[in-house]
Amino acid sequence: MNQLKQLGVQPLEWTGQTLRLLDQRLLPEQQVYHEYDNAGDIRDAIFQMQVRGAPAIGIAAAYGVALSVRQHFGVDKRDWKTRVKQDIQLLSTSRPTAVNLFWALHKMEQLFEQHHDNPVAAAARLAQQIHADDIEANLRMGEAGADLLGEAQAVMTHCNAGALATGGYGTALGVIRSASKRGLKNIYAGETRPWLQGARLTAWELQQDGIDVTLIADSAAAWLMKSGKLDWIIVGADRIAANGDVANKIGTYSLAVLARQHDVKLMVVAPTSTIDFSMESGENITIEMRSADELLPACYQNTNVSAWNPVFDVTPARLVSAIVTERGVVMNPAEQNGVRSLQ
Amino acid sequence: MNQLKQLGVQPLEWTGQTLRLLDQRLLPEQQVYHEYDNAGDIRDAIFQMQVRGAPAIGIAAAYGVALSVRQHFGVDKRDWKTRVKQDIQLLSTSRPTAVNLFWALHKMEQLFEQHHDNPVAAAARLAQQIHADDIEANLRMGEAGADLLGEAQAVMTHCNAGALATGGYGTALGVIRSASKRGLKNIYAGETRPWLQGARLTAWELQQDGIDVTLIADSAAAWLMKSGKLDWIIVGADRIAANGDVANKIGTYSLAVLARQHDVKLMVVAPTSTIDFSMESGENITIEMRSADELLPACYQNTNVSAWNPVFDVTPARLVSAIVTERGVVMNPAEQNGVRSLQ
Repeated sequence: MNQLKQLGVQPLEWTGQTLRLLDQRLLPEQQVYHEYDNAGDIRDAIFQMQVRGAPAIGIAAAYGVALSVRQHFGVDKRDWKTRVKQDIQLLSTSRPTAVNLFWALHKMEQLFEQHHDNPVAAAARLAQQIHADDIEANLRMGEAGADLLGEAQAVMTHCNAGALATGGYGTALGVIRSASKRGLKNIYAGETRPWLQGARLTAWELQQDGIDVTLIADSAAAWLMKSGKLDWIIVGADRIAANGDVANKIGTYSLAVLARQHDVKLMVVAPTSTIDFSMESGENITIEMRSADELLPACYQNTNVSAWNPVFDVTPARLVSAIVTERGVVMNPAEQNGVRSLQ
Repeated sequence: MNQLKQLGVQPLEWTGQTLRLLDQRLLPEQQVYHEYDNAGDIRDAIFQMQVRGAPAIGIAAAYGVALSVRQHFGVDKRDWKTRVKQDIQLLSTSRPTAVNLFWALHKMEQLFEQHHDNPVAAAARLAQQIHADDIEANLRMGEAGADLLGEAQAVMTHCNAGALATGGYGTALGVIRSASKRGLKNIYAGETRPWLQGARLTAWELQQDGIDVTLIADSAAAWLMKSGKLDWIIVGADRIAANGDVANKIGTYSLAVLARQHDVKLMVVAPTSTIDFSMESGENITIEMRSADELLPACYQNTNVSAWNPVFDVTPARLVSAIVTERGVVMNPAEQNGVRSLQ
């Protein structure tokens, strides 16, 4: 836990008996943690986006399974596995796009294939391991990404792929943290409508760390690129297909097309738990659609004004300059058989 | 006035003695008109964006000059022109990018080169003429733009180039109104951060007219284009250079680059008062920067979080498929010596 504290802001804290989640809907104005002792409430917390970000969702779900084991093993030593599997099923309905969720649930489920004298402790241990591994992966990716940046003068990130989206430190923002220690000064963040993860979460995280950041409207990114001031776009990912196509926050595809047109490079930073090796191409990734209310002023309810609100988009591998994982970097994945070498 | 009422929502109403302005900062929740009797207050109303949109700013400024003549001619028959010229100077400092402002002020100033027995009435008449001409131009452009659309199935607009941005009916939204009467069904509007002109003004205008509209986050436009569902982007303009470069709301350049990459066409709709024939290229257009506060949550004040908030960008003529004016349409302006043929 000490190491975690040194990493700064923590979106998830395991107390031993409960999971504490920082309510990301209230940032940056308020820092409020809620405490959870069962899988159903964690499922709702993920659905409601109290916790978001592909790796963080996976970790929260893993702890959700651990809490489910704790709840049901104590009460019903005969039938507890059935109940835990029901909770795993429930957790899997929280959000559809991030594959880390399904990856973490699968890892937790595999636990029950072996005998454990104390499954409660074993499940908690595995969830904590998933959590710690994620942080470790982020630190490694941070250095690898900073190596890639080299002498780059200015970068932009989209959404929040930071400590808040992961176990800690962050993926895209982990690279920016590591590069900042090496002297990178010009960091831009897109505000990322409709949920404003960039304005509310990324700017806040960097402020906490004393790293200067400049916020821009999402639609100003092209104009910034045209000024010649940007070297790299750095983003996380919610799911990467085997061919290197990347599902990430809506707007990533837009940035990728614009970056290519302005000779700006695109770096995707994600742990291998984000890679869906079973999916050949990004075209098959389920894109979550969220409520029109996230976009529409309330006075338009029940009128002829509607909204189209996809939360993610898919960037084809040919627009990606580098995919950085804890197992290594794939340059120009479209020319490298995607990310299959990382399997 | 009767013809104006038939056009629906009016951003500007001349009462004979005063100018009433619909406060566009309060839409769509509230419809509040403020009444002005002097140029200084109209200058502030433009600066504060109670009224916005290049043609509407020009018309408001023209009425501002008319009110200045009314105020000063009555009081000081000897020196009133000096005072009116001071007010014209003041009005010219309201916003820097839209050329219609300077065009309208220049037209009003020319009035004083001739003798008028009743300059108060003459100035009011000229301002009303500028207003009526703008509406007339919009109606003509609406039909010309709808002709261009032909059998197009789906269009998207950005910001608000509607009745609210003009004397009435609108430029880009005038085309959409005309096309809607001919059967166009699929109309998308980008919400247009940071001021949300699309969400607050364009959606509201179309709702008033009973025209269905679908709002999207600005960064979702590329993903919509990739789906193949979009035929045209239709926007207004704040200033068009002689070579056909177009200054318009931030995000227009982004849409233009994305449109070209997705075989979507870009139509710019603007009266010739928006063309700055004295400016050879868009590179020389002054781009207004507005306060960081429009982007930053209040809790970031006095921290290391800053914002870059350009309000406009410049789209090079080579990305423009058609410029529609009341004097005619220029197809592919980059291949046609810009818009110089319209002079």
